[in-house]
Amino acid sequence: MKVVVKVMLRQGVLDPQGEAIRHALGTLGFEGVETVRQGKLIVLDLAETDPEAARAAAAEMCERLLANTVIESYEIEVE
Amino acid sequence: MKVVVKVMLRQGVLDPQGEAIRHALGTLGFEGVETVRQGKLIVLDLAETDPEAARAAAAEMCERLLANTVIESYEIEVE
Repeated sequence: MKVVVKVMLRQGVLDPQGEAIRHALGTLGFEGVETVRQGKLIVLDLAETDPEAARAAAAEMCERLLANTVIESYEIEVE
Repeated sequence: MKVVVKVMLRQGVLDPQGEAIRHALGTLGFEGVETVRQGKLIVLDLAETDPEAARAAAAEMCERLLANTVIESYEIEVE
């Protein structure tokens, strides 16, 4: 079962990497780029076949390893 | 207009970061994690209000800066 995890810095946490991208896009001539936030995309292939169990496993993986929940939030999509 | 760009390594390109996550999840006791791929998630806030124009701008940003199209593929979602 394919599970997609999106990990982003929480609102209010400075994102210097996103800001660097925004600046670089401006330097390349792209106008109207207001904000850029960068996060991580983690695609897991799990042996689990039950969608709810796969989601629960992914949530535990996020809490324990994939996200630093002090500064990051995560979203899980089961496909 | 919010545009979400997903950048992943192409199929066949080794992903040591994903492999490290897979190994770490195994060490933590998670079973049945078959493969892990890690990519980047870039959330752009564009002044552009036309969805098709926003998508086209994001595609050009990917080609020129956000993705290394030799080894990475990208997907664009306009929200």
